[in-house]
Amino acid sequence: MASSFIFSEWPPKLTEPQLESLTLAATTYALSHGLLYLPLPSPPSQAQPPAPTSAIHAPLALFPSPVPRALFDRAQRLQRVYNVLYARVALDEAFLDRVMGAVEGVGRADEFVGTLWRGWRAVRDEGVVQPLQLGLFRSDYLLHTGGAGVGAELELKQVEFNTISSSFGPLSERAAAMHRYLHASTGYFGVSPYLRADNFPPNDTTAGLAQGLAEAHKAYGVPGSQILFVVQPNERNVFDQRWLEYELLEKHAIHVVRQTFAELAESVAIDPTSRALLITPSPSTTPAPSAIEISTIYFRAGYVPTDFPTPADYATRIALERSRAIKCPSIPLQLAGGKKVQEALTKPGVLERFLGGGAESGGYGPEVLEEVRATWMGMWALDEDEGTTTTTTSPAPPEPAGTLKARAHASALDREAWIAMELIVPPAGTGSYLVRAGGGGGVRAEVISELGVFGLALFGGGAGGGKGEGEVREREVGWLMRTKGVESNEGGVAAGFSVLDSVVLVD
Amino acid sequence: MASSFIFSEWPPKLTEPQLESLTLAATTYALSHGLLYLPLPSPPSQAQPPAPTSAIHAPLALFPSPVPRALFDRAQRLQRVYNVLYARVALDEAFLDRVMGAVEGVGRADEFVGTLWRGWRAVRDEGVVQPLQLGLFRSDYLLHTGGAGVGAELELKQVEFNTISSSFGPLSERAAAMHRYLHASTGYFGVSPYLRADNFPPNDTTAGLAQGLAEAHKAYGVPGSQILFVVQPNERNVFDQRWLEYELLEKHAIHVVRQTFAELAESVAIDPTSRALLITPSPSTTPAPSAIEISTIYFRAGYVPTDFPTPADYATRIALERSRAIKCPSIPLQLAGGKKVQEALTKPGVLERFLGGGAESGGYGPEVLEEVRATWMGMWALDEDEGTTTTTTSPAPPEPAGTLKARAHASALDREAWIAMELIVPPAGTGSYLVRAGGGGGVRAEVISELGVFGLALFGGGAGGGKGEGEVREREVGWLMRTKGVESNEGGVAAGFSVLDSVVLVD
Repeated sequence: MASSFIFSEWPPKLTEPQLESLTLAATTYALSHGLLYLPLPSPPSQAQPPAPTSAIHAPLALFPSPVPRALFDRAQRLQRVYNVLYARVALDEAFLDRVMGAVEGVGRADEFVGTLWRGWRAVRDEGVVQPLQLGLFRSDYLLHTGGAGVGAELELKQVEFNTISSSFGPLSERAAAMHRYLHASTGYFGVSPYLRADNFPPNDTTAGLAQGLAEAHKAYGVPGSQILFVVQPNERNVFDQRWLEYELLEKHAIHVVRQTFAELAESVAIDPTSRALLITPSPSTTPAPSAIEISTIYFRAGYVPTDFPTPADYATRIALERSRAIKCPSIPLQLAGGKKVQEALTKPGVLERFLGGGAESGGYGPEVLEEVRATWMGMWALDEDEGTTTTTTSPAPPEPAGTLKARAHASALDREAWIAMELIVPPAGTGSYLVRAGGGGGVRAEVISELGVFGLALFGGGAGGGKGEGEVREREVGWLMRTKGVESNEGGVAAGFSVLDSVVLVD
Repeated sequence: MASSFIFSEWPPKLTEPQLESLTLAATTYALSHGLLYLPLPSPPSQAQPPAPTSAIHAPLALFPSPVPRALFDRAQRLQRVYNVLYARVALDEAFLDRVMGAVEGVGRADEFVGTLWRGWRAVRDEGVVQPLQLGLFRSDYLLHTGGAGVGAELELKQVEFNTISSSFGPLSERAAAMHRYLHASTGYFGVSPYLRADNFPPNDTTAGLAQGLAEAHKAYGVPGSQILFVVQPNERNVFDQRWLEYELLEKHAIHVVRQTFAELAESVAIDPTSRALLITPSPSTTPAPSAIEISTIYFRAGYVPTDFPTPADYATRIALERSRAIKCPSIPLQLAGGKKVQEALTKPGVLERFLGGGAESGGYGPEVLEEVRATWMGMWALDEDEGTTTTTTSPAPPEPAGTLKARAHASALDREAWIAMELIVPPAGTGSYLVRAGGGGGVRAEVISELGVFGLALFGGGAGGGKGEGEVREREVGWLMRTKGVESNEGGVAAGFSVLDSVVLVD
């Protein structure tokens, strides 16, 4: 679409008193409303204390970042198609074996992918006892100018599709609330006509993501069971997870037990008959330690090889997969998030195979498929056998300049897939005021902003009411805006750090 | 009332894993829900940074503290009588002149009180342009055993009545929510049958206090006017105040401007005709700085002499009093909170003069007055002329052992009033688990808990609908529980620090 909005003039200039006033209001709001990280321990090599005593505000942008209204609407609408697409990919064992497997696919060269895939195959051989799967997804986009200047067509281009540990939902909701508060309290000093309440889209991501976990829990259907959050040790983005716990407890009366892979190695048991997943926390807080049955496993760890420092950790991951608990995600759904899958979907006929056929057969018309395809950049697989050579000689950079490499959840599945993606070129010269704890106040910087759209899908077992395996119960459940200073920023002060942001809709 | 509850057995013992688990849950909840203080700057002599980057959790108790249900109900019920009482005291110029004035009363010997009183008298001489006054009160109580043992009659005894800067309302609400959360998430490990949801009284203090400020603002009736918060420089209990600002903005669309006395000295102007209070923030955030009209002044500073480091600060305080803005509190209402007033009310016939006469004349029956009087300990004025002598020879200690001397708002009006109060003796041996940031985890300690009940009163100008000056629009609006380790605590680890707590009702 063509936008009359001039991205290079964003954000409006602030005077020094305005910048100070806005920074004070923003950081105070962030601290009081749980838009938080845990601080780095001191010295940084130390573990987090057993109970936190302080928190820092998450890095944040003082202004929301502009997104054309039509593209924002499209991203939200397409999320429902993507939810179905990735659910169906996860259900297609043959496709995943071919693309990601250790015999034919990525798993041949990538030990991490190969290990997960072999674990999954072993579980399949034994017989999968839990057909239901839960996906909490996030599809990430950049705005793409095609390299043209002001007034050019702007397009929505997908960077990646996350099927595991799609983080920052609750913090994103709070960043959006913070921008609404800054607008309500200061009117942003009247510096821009775009900063109006009705240009700030609602963001209720916490409720949406928790609803997904609650629906899986309910589908599991065992009273007294709990949800397991598998977490990384020394996680600093812990409040983003805690908000989901609070929502599950307050709105759904569901309890959460948090464990690292190392803790799970000691605490997990699987009932040999039912394959119920049982956890006995240790040291126990009850006099007669009793095992807790787990309804749903929510992985906020397990997406990078460093989450599995010992072979025992992989064994734990596979044990969890064997259990009757509903996995968010299952191994196949995790594998479906690989870059190589993203590339495979661009091949002729593949999208049609998953989504074609029109509404009567659970598919979509060609115009919808075209809309999905329009969010993709060109992608090429560089065969593993010739990968190194091809990479060094390829005229196209193997990584899009616009992807936020610092993202916390950068999938290890991407690393070894040897995929080249056409360069996404965001609007040049767009700026923001970035604030980070200890950064000495707001810094104006040239930035790139990435929009994430959250979706959920519960599928695989006739979850939608017995209509069979093809049925996918899914919803679009919110969004995330993250913004990062680009390298060319003056003095490099803000380069390389990514902040929580929100959206101002422009036309 | 007689209570079957055994205070010396509270709280139930926790195992080490239970204590660790509860501490982690409590501090994480506190950090994420704005139960916060700003950290001490480093080094401590430094000013707070212009925008905060981190916060620590407020000191807190892991268990709520027991209060007999009947006494809790009584404290809430009596608050409405106290609201009327102190409003009427503030309206009785002759009484305040006699008790607190610089000619006959406390102001003779106490320079702070005398200066405030003289400022008030000057404003009266000139003519008071704003008859309306707002009180946000907190009446503080201890449980009193009369020194008898288990099973003895427990009584509710008033420590003091705060008429200025009644703080900790929003943090108290969050402490109560934290205990409800700990109960919901852990069931407190089943360690006590008293820890049931219906024994946790509701606490919506933030909404109540903000409602009071909003009613004053509305009574002032000037569109575009704002509320002024007068604050101390380097305030660390800032979030308690911010929650009121957020509530005013979100629920009432009222903006707040925060200023210290030093800032006000530069920014204040009073319209010579209307005496409207006008504030021009400097440095200005708008290109053409325009003055903001103030509807209501909420004092979170000005209750101790150190809040007035220069004579100019007193001049500012008096200038605010001269203005048409509604004061929370006015100088007379601030003076009404003096210890000497509390003592004067105990004299025969004084309570009757303010509250007697039955409902038809706006008074109360003798049984209500008796209930109020039953919350008082014996009090004696030690005349200034003989004060020193009497104090040293008096058999009764001049300060109740149970008062929390560390309270942030300890009124300077008390210091020079030379009042002796009969000793309040709380139930012995009551404990708590106290947690403070940097304190290295939860500490079990013997404690004293103080219950505060919040009230509001808008009065002085026929606020209740034109019924004349005697009309008081008032409500009970919530409560606070604060708990402090006593000196005799083993090792003194928790001695002298006061934590945010809440109430578990017992019978």
